[in-house]
Amino acid sequence: MVIESGMNNAIEEQLLNSAQLIGLDWGSTGLRAFLMGAEGNVLATRASQSGASSLQATASYPSILQQFIGDWFHSGDKKLPILACGMVGSKHGWLDVPYVECPANADALAQRFGAIESVHIVPGLIFNPSNPTVPPDLMRGEETQLVGALQLRPELVEQSCFILPGTHSKWAQIKHGQCLSFATHMTGELYSVLRQHSVLGRLFPSTPSETNHRAENDAFNLGVRAARDDAHLGLNHQLFAVRSLGVTEKMSGAELANYLSGLLIGHEVKAGLNWRRLAGLAQAPLVLIGEPDLCRRYENALAIFDIHNALVLANTAPAGLWNLAKAAKLV
Amino acid sequence: MVIESGMNNAIEEQLLNSAQLIGLDWGSTGLRAFLMGAEGNVLATRASQSGASSLQATASYPSILQQFIGDWFHSGDKKLPILACGMVGSKHGWLDVPYVECPANADALAQRFGAIESVHIVPGLIFNPSNPTVPPDLMRGEETQLVGALQLRPELVEQSCFILPGTHSKWAQIKHGQCLSFATHMTGELYSVLRQHSVLGRLFPSTPSETNHRAENDAFNLGVRAARDDAHLGLNHQLFAVRSLGVTEKMSGAELANYLSGLLIGHEVKAGLNWRRLAGLAQAPLVLIGEPDLCRRYENALAIFDIHNALVLANTAPAGLWNLAKAAKLV
Repeated sequence: MVIESGMNNAIEEQLLNSAQLIGLDWGSTGLRAFLMGAEGNVLATRASQSGASSLQATASYPSILQQFIGDWFHSGDKKLPILACGMVGSKHGWLDVPYVECPANADALAQRFGAIESVHIVPGLIFNPSNPTVPPDLMRGEETQLVGALQLRPELVEQSCFILPGTHSKWAQIKHGQCLSFATHMTGELYSVLRQHSVLGRLFPSTPSETNHRAENDAFNLGVRAARDDAHLGLNHQLFAVRSLGVTEKMSGAELANYLSGLLIGHEVKAGLNWRRLAGLAQAPLVLIGEPDLCRRYENALAIFDIHNALVLANTAPAGLWNLAKAAKLV
Repeated sequence: MVIESGMNNAIEEQLLNSAQLIGLDWGSTGLRAFLMGAEGNVLATRASQSGASSLQATASYPSILQQFIGDWFHSGDKKLPILACGMVGSKHGWLDVPYVECPANADALAQRFGAIESVHIVPGLIFNPSNPTVPPDLMRGEETQLVGALQLRPELVEQSCFILPGTHSKWAQIKHGQCLSFATHMTGELYSVLRQHSVLGRLFPSTPSETNHRAENDAFNLGVRAARDDAHLGLNHQLFAVRSLGVTEKMSGAELANYLSGLLIGHEVKAGLNWRRLAGLAQAPLVLIGEPDLCRRYENALAIFDIHNALVLANTAPAGLWNLAKAAKLV
């Protein structure tokens, strides 16, 4: 278990006295804990790699928590409430908390928390398209980030379009504080499996060496432009260019990796912007939430589609957990 | 090494006396040898799993050949010519034989054979789009199948559109006996990496059990239709439905695998038919070459796009090798 930020015990006791909530962002590949005070300010943060997909048995969840934040459980003689979001609430997590259907706002989520031992769990969201032949879409964890973003930026409540890049990127449509619909793109996972397991990744460098940031950035942009300008051949065809550009020695391995990233993000952004337009959100604020490096790639890609005014927010999960805990009267 | 069809030595000696050529279809994952008589009739066939990607050193090629078909090398006191096609001629094969540029016909290929030890190797094809910002496309092995198909079916020489499904499916445009252009789709490889290494494959059955062929066929068709009817969200988004349909228990694992196959083939066929139309080949014969089971999937997918008259050809590589050997005066 990796502890990112340990704390001096003396300070921690002081902090604990003002703590009101323990928030957990417990995804497939990691666990983040936030000790929160009045108004939801984050007093301390810890991170571990004990993601839900690394835990085989539900029995291991309580012991992981005890080991990870057992010293946070009590503030004075008061037991702190614990609220978790993410894949911890899935069928393959600790407790299967049923999805809440779109449209939904923070109150709808807060009314449907799951609870196991002393931990409350935020449900995920399901979007069932009006056309019953179109499959549903799912999120777990991102709904909490959306709640946090709307809390932190009230101007986004009326109408906004969110992009949450990642393994399974989400594009979400907000109207009157409700998430009306959303769409997943498997961008991050496609990049990862193609890099590690396909003929394309064989041409990439195994370790980053002698990087040429300018050339790599150019290659990323070329990939985005290829996706933007593709009239009809599609991603399935364009991916093969990563091989042909390598075999014909038009790009280095590091450039090819960036070209692939550009192609995948470019196709996501192209599809997402069409979806946004059809949802009537072309004039609504566009907001990115995620890791700064990844958000920068998306900003670069959006610029190639002539969009230069996206708002970038860092992790809004703590604000979301706080706000949901308040809506459920846990704090 | 797996030998598919061994032969009685006595028969083999008779056959050898009438043999004129040894043809090799030496791809990434397998090697097939054809002993051919006058007019290119196949006297004997052998198959092994010693594909080019399993051979680390170029030094291993001659010994593999000796072991595999050493008894075929001589017909009476005459040494038989050997002609190979496929990844054996690539940078990571036995000898890097430069690609021939489209448009190209059998004669153009025959003039540019590589040669190493006593083996001649057919070059692959490269297509450089007229727009220099669009990456080139590549094939190795399929050019020989195209030559064979045009030899076997003269009515296809004037104008035709070929689909060669596989790991890297090729769509090729033929006019006046020349391959004018082609486009690769990574359909087979995407299916394989997503099945084995992504979150999607985790829901599939590890061994086929209690299969319900009707339900699986329906799931395949649903995937093709979803691809056909997708207005703007694209493959990257639609792939996630394989997960959402599994998590919400709308499909069994075996159905999900077929839905994924339908989505990928559906997107290929949709893009390929657009490409065919823009190439002015909408009225030209459409021809499938490949494994019968895979061709059947493509026929089913084409039917969903209202195309019912595709011609299906089995392996045309032997006819291609024979015809190229003739064009190069090896026979």
